[in-house]
Amino acid sequence: MLNPNLKRHKPKKEYSVAQYIDGIRAGNRVLLGQAITLIESTLPIHQEKAQAIIKGCLPYSGKSIRIGITGTPGVGKSTFIESLGLHILAQQHQLAVLAVDPSSQVTKGSILGDKTRMVKLSTHQNAFIRPSPAGDSLGGVARKTREIIILCEAAGYDVIFVETVGVGQSEVAVHSMVDFFLLLLLPGGGDELQGIKRGVVEMADCIAINKADGDNVQAAKRSRAAYKNALHLYPPKDSEWIPQAVMCSALQHEGIDKIWELILKFKQQTTKNQYFIHHRQQQAKAWLNESIRQLLQDYFYKNENIKTTLPDIEAAVLSGKLSAYQGAKELMKLFGG
Amino acid sequence: MLNPNLKRHKPKKEYSVAQYIDGIRAGNRVLLGQAITLIESTLPIHQEKAQAIIKGCLPYSGKSIRIGITGTPGVGKSTFIESLGLHILAQQHQLAVLAVDPSSQVTKGSILGDKTRMVKLSTHQNAFIRPSPAGDSLGGVARKTREIIILCEAAGYDVIFVETVGVGQSEVAVHSMVDFFLLLLLPGGGDELQGIKRGVVEMADCIAINKADGDNVQAAKRSRAAYKNALHLYPPKDSEWIPQAVMCSALQHEGIDKIWELILKFKQQTTKNQYFIHHRQQQAKAWLNESIRQLLQDYFYKNENIKTTLPDIEAAVLSGKLSAYQGAKELMKLFGG
Repeated sequence: MLNPNLKRHKPKKEYSVAQYIDGIRAGNRVLLGQAITLIESTLPIHQEKAQAIIKGCLPYSGKSIRIGITGTPGVGKSTFIESLGLHILAQQHQLAVLAVDPSSQVTKGSILGDKTRMVKLSTHQNAFIRPSPAGDSLGGVARKTREIIILCEAAGYDVIFVETVGVGQSEVAVHSMVDFFLLLLLPGGGDELQGIKRGVVEMADCIAINKADGDNVQAAKRSRAAYKNALHLYPPKDSEWIPQAVMCSALQHEGIDKIWELILKFKQQTTKNQYFIHHRQQQAKAWLNESIRQLLQDYFYKNENIKTTLPDIEAAVLSGKLSAYQGAKELMKLFGG
Repeated sequence: MLNPNLKRHKPKKEYSVAQYIDGIRAGNRVLLGQAITLIESTLPIHQEKAQAIIKGCLPYSGKSIRIGITGTPGVGKSTFIESLGLHILAQQHQLAVLAVDPSSQVTKGSILGDKTRMVKLSTHQNAFIRPSPAGDSLGGVARKTREIIILCEAAGYDVIFVETVGVGQSEVAVHSMVDFFLLLLLPGGGDELQGIKRGVVEMADCIAINKADGDNVQAAKRSRAAYKNALHLYPPKDSEWIPQAVMCSALQHEGIDKIWELILKFKQQTTKNQYFIHHRQQQAKAWLNESIRQLLQDYFYKNENIKTTLPDIEAAVLSGKLSAYQGAKELMKLFGG
């Protein structure tokens, strides 16, 4: 039915929602990719179709481990993802690699955009790699990525990587959509020197000191010991999981198997104490609230009365004629509140 | 007209909005205190009156320097505030000391609650000290404090301290309402060991290593040098102000005059490059947006349709029948969006 030679630049055949859902469930990568393109589209007609596809895929989603991976440029993230990814694929898993990069508006998906950085992974039949969706805001990019996870899981990918850069709010967004959060660091120099916010260190379930090879081994050992100590100082996590500090060399494929073992141990332990499902439900609730907040704000600022009056109210607040609260109250009155 | 012996526990006379505004502008501390109590009240009738008073005071507000002061318990914050406060009062200024403590819901205003910790300041005729307003949320406490600042400025207080604890989100709230942000640290041990988030260090316009006396002097010198270097690594601020690291001993009143000079220099420099007024306008705009966000959420969650349906939608999202976005969309439809 579907043309297996379908290429990106040929005119696309129009599939129905049911065809998309069936295709995704059957593991058809072309239909999965096209459905993701619908999620990424800003056209209302595409959005509507995307939401119907997501709804149809939801019952088949969730059966995966979602792993967030962060680290600043230069830490060897692509090499790490390729190395860990190939190890996981060798255990008969199916792997989807996604990314959250709010700057992709400008760079058109710089993270993962260049699949040549993951040569073996990108050509592996059980791996699916997709660059960051573009979006005008981190919230928009995050929502789309959460929806893409649903489709990937319905397509049978049981390990999901969500990559991000280690420099800001995007870690918080990724942390809110994954089960396990992994921070990559370089040997020597603390996270501070490497430009990692302390909050990111606190979120980590595992800190991996990468490039622990050759002349770096001693520095990596010191870093690992320092983080092992530091992690003990943080308050215990709700998961009862004690964050681990490990060394690895993605280039030499050393220490990578150990990291996968850790992740499996985390899943086992948190399944047993029921944190795993509890945490996912907490995340779902937080996403619901965040979605409400976002839609509510859009609805408010698109209101014609508000659009007309906002500049005057803003001017009154800036010039000290109204307090911020009073300005907001005036606007709410116009809104019907 | 007003009874100067009016005490907290006597039945309060009912004043009109105009009487409050006149009284506050005349520097009447009793009326200022009562107006603040109206701001803090949750009764709608009090809130209405408070808003009218704030509106009347707004044109007379703004002529001050607002200084945020943070530091973890044990850093000697009360002693510091008393020492710097007395120095400022000696320069013929009028000083209001406020606090933002979101935990005050529980502790009933632990910060500044015990005025005996600032004996000289609390009995000084040109100083006005007020503990943190209570509130169910940081947002609520922050709003009330911003409104209290307006009243204090209208009452002629031209230096405003806003104190907070150095452990979390409350610094961000305080930072968003002050011109100058001061972080107190102890000699020896980095901010990390002292439980200060790195983001707080980044917000500081001045880091003061307190308790730089006796056996601590050498450690304080090392700390100061370390922070002086560290502060240079941060990206330049919009204010073009280079954050300073200094030593002081509030107990011995040493280095305190230097800090006040720094603050004056900051005000002079940022007035000249127009950052001072620009920053206040930015803050006012951010407060407007924050107030809108808060009122909008209140309005939404109080809606009867939403109240009735929210539990079902939440259950559907938690059980995976709806995505978070779809759940939010359903609710927005009920809301009219």
